[in-house]
Order: sequence, then C-alpha cells, then structure tokens
Amino acid sequence: MGEKEIPQSHPRYNSLMQRARIEKGVRLGITHLQGLIAQGRGEAYDYLLGERTIASAREAIRAAAAQLLIASHPVLSVNGNVAALCPEAIAELSNELNCAVETNLFYSGDERKRKIVEHMKKYGVDLLGVGAEKKIPSLDSKRAAVSEEGIWKADVVFVPLEDGDRTEALCAMGKKVIVVDLSPRSRSARKADICIVDNVVRCVPLLIEEIHMLKNENSESLQKIVSSFSNKRNLRESLNFMKKQL
Amino acid sequence: MGEKEIPQSHPRYNSLMQRARIEKGVRLGITHLQGLIAQGRGEAYDYLLGERTIASAREAIRAAAAQLLIASHPVLSVNGNVAALCPEAIAELSNELNCAVETNLFYSGDERKRKIVEHMKKYGVDLLGVGAEKKIPSLDSKRAAVSEEGIWKADVVFVPLEDGDRTEALCAMGKKVIVVDLSPRSRSARKADICIVDNVVRCVPLLIEEIHMLKNENSESLQKIVSSFSNKRNLRESLNFMKKQL
Repeated sequence: MGEKEIPQSHPRYNSLMQRARIEKGVRLGITHLQGLIAQGRGEAYDYLLGERTIASAREAIRAAAAQLLIASHPVLSVNGNVAALCPEAIAELSNELNCAVETNLFYSGDERKRKIVEHMKKYGVDLLGVGAEKKIPSLDSKRAAVSEEGIWKADVVFVPLEDGDRTEALCAMGKKVIVVDLSPRSRSARKADICIVDNVVRCVPLLIEEIHMLKNENSESLQKIVSSFSNKRNLRESLNFMKKQL
Repeated sequence: MGEKEIPQSHPRYNSLMQRARIEKGVRLGITHLQGLIAQGRGEAYDYLLGERTIASAREAIRAAAAQLLIASHPVLSVNGNVAALCPEAIAELSNELNCAVETNLFYSGDERKRKIVEHMKKYGVDLLGVGAEKKIPSLDSKRAAVSEEGIWKADVVFVPLEDGDRTEALCAMGKKVIVVDLSPRSRSARKADICIVDNVVRCVPLLIEEIHMLKNENSESLQKIVSSFSNKRNLRESLNFMKKQL
C-alpha cells in the first residue's frame, strides 16, 4: 500500500504510514532490507508502549533538547530508516539547531549514501558523509568513516536508531550521544548518554517543540536539566511501563 | 550477508541465518517486503523468549501433533516467510503427515504464488493454491481464495504466521486451526484452537519429532491430549514468561 492509499481514518494509520514510507525507502534504494527487519523489531516494542510517547520518554526528550541547546557543535546523524521515515522532521530539527546532518550507514554502500543525500536534498538538507575522510577509532573501516565537519568535530551527536558498537565508540571519543531506541535493553540504549525510548517518528517533532520551549533558558538551567537526567533510571522506567503493558 | 558467509561459530548464527534466508526470499520474489517487517516483529518477541522453545510452547507443539494425527484431512499452509525460512522442514512435515501443502498470501500476487510454488518444488513439495477456485466466506476476494483439494476440504489446518482475519474465518468454517505466532497477544494467537508461541524455524522440526513419538498412540489418547490443552491458559503462560524475561 502506498502512502496516498492509506485513509487517514484507518485505525492503524500511523503504523501503516510508517510501513509504506519504509517500503518506499527500499524501493528508492535508501533503506537496506535489514532496515525493514529493524523496523519490525521497533514495531513490536512500540506496541508495548501503547504506540505513544510515555512520560519517561518525555523526560528524555527534555534532557536531549537541553543537551542539544548547550552543544557548541551539535550534529544529527541519519541512516536509511530515518531518512525514509521522517525526512521533514530531520530537516526542521537541523534548521532549528542550525547544525550539520551527516549520513552514516551500518550496512555500507557509498551508492546508498549518495541516494540518501539526494533524497534529503528534496527536504532542503545538505548531508555530509559521502567521501568521509576521518575514522572513528576502534571500529572496522567501513563503519568508522565520518566527515571532519560533521560527526568528527561534534561535541553532541543525535543519532536515532544507532547500533551499539558505534554508540559506544562515539562515547569513547568523548562526545555526548543521544539515541532513539524502542528497546530499552539494547546496547545502544544502555551505552548512550541519553536514550529516548520512543518511535523516532513521534519523538523528533516533540524534540523540536521542546527545543522551542527551552530556547531562551540560560545555560545554567539547561545544564541542570541535563545533569538531573539519569539514563539508567529512565530506561528502567520505560521497561517497567512495557512490563505492565505486556 | 549471504547464508554461506555466516560462520557457524557466530554467537548470533541462528538469527543471522534467518535474516539471510528472509532477505534471499525477497530477492527470489517469494517474500513480500512487509514480510521482512513481520520477521522483525517476531525477532523482538523471540528475544523475550530467550530465543528458545519454552515449556508452554512444547505443550502446544504436543497438542498440535496430536491434532494433526487425529485429522482426516490435514493441510499445511505456507506464506512467503515460511517458504523462505524453513522449506526443508515443511517438506518433511508434509511427508510425515502425507498431506497437502497450500500457499496463501496476505499480500496478494499470483506471480508471487507461482514463485513460491517453484521454490517449494526444489524441496520436493507440490504446492496447491495457484488458481484456487473456492472462497473462504467473509474475507475480501483476494485473500479468500483456497483450493478445493487443500484448505477448502481440510478439517485441520496448520497455518504458521497467519493473520487474525484469516485465522478467524477458517475457525468459523469449522476447521481446527493451528498457528505459530511469537506474539501471544496477537489476534491470530487468540483466535486459533492451538497457538504455538515459538519461532517457526525452531518449532516445525520439534513438531515433526512429536508426531514421530505420538504416531502409534490410539486416537483416544490423542484426543485426550488435544482436549486437555487450553489455548488461553497456554498463551497466559507464554506471556508470563516474557514478562519475567523483560
């Protein structure tokens, strides 16, 4: 089913819409087939959230907004799923933060990177990442490449849907890492400084709203929001919610 | 990663193997892209089972074996995911029961049906389902088609990975319906007479073993196994296991 064939009145409109977008991503050559499997895993966990942004996720979004506002060089990282699912929201977020966006793929392929660049250009985003020249230490070569003006220089990286290895490696470089992950038990959720346990499609618009609201706070109160956030406690709260839902 | 590139020593061998097979299914044109998303949902629930066949699933497998042995006209139904994931086991099961196998697709397409037929032929299975002439009442036309010698005539249907609507419609026709579903809360799990909450790749070989073991039992003791099985109780046990695991 294509996006336009899904009636807005359908009780599963949001879920079908995401499926349609990710399927289109595969057809456009920007989403890897394995990205579809990852989408399915996310769907299963999203059911356990009742397919809504729960209170603990709101708290994580607030901390993420503060962390991004404090940053001197924040960077957004997008993969083939994020580019397919919510390109508009990523474009808006990068405008809001006036920051670079870089593409980084788990399943390599410079051709796919170029297609993602082309795709995001339609939404007004000039992506970094093709022909990236710097290497993240301790990762195998293909997944290590980052561009100097993007992730290499960043002090805060927002990497929705990142894998555990890269999250860990980015943290080891001294960066603050914010991930979005529907599984609170995943390695990236646990390794990140801030993990938002939510659907990326729901949470990026909320993150933009939160940035709007916190924009005029001074850096001391932003810092306070960040330092009072405990990722470990937050993940436990999300897990407890899911347990009850199951 | 193709099947042959995955080292047997890899800690995630089974999971990677399934991903490789389902990806190959897409390339062969037998698995729908949406089937990959379904595979991902299954993976998430399979983590919650510890990726093994739990005690309550063993009990459901035993009841399924007894139900299939009692049947006068059992039929196996395969979709694009099952054909990609475990064609060998389906072939063995149909030999064991000396029964028909039919292909039924949620996402329609006679071309895809033909490709599944071709694929299963390599495993020695002659599939029914192409040009099916009978209709399951109360389903929309494409998903309703079943063949007279297959599901139409069946008294017991083994339909791994079936959707809720069809499960319900088959039950309404008075058939005994056995499904395999990793989500104990899904509609097909609840509507089926017997739901095996397990990975189809693990459970079909176990079902074959169980059929071997029960083969010489008389129909009275087989009937006893079936009637002492409660699908509702069994699903609750699986759910409780998952809750603890989470």
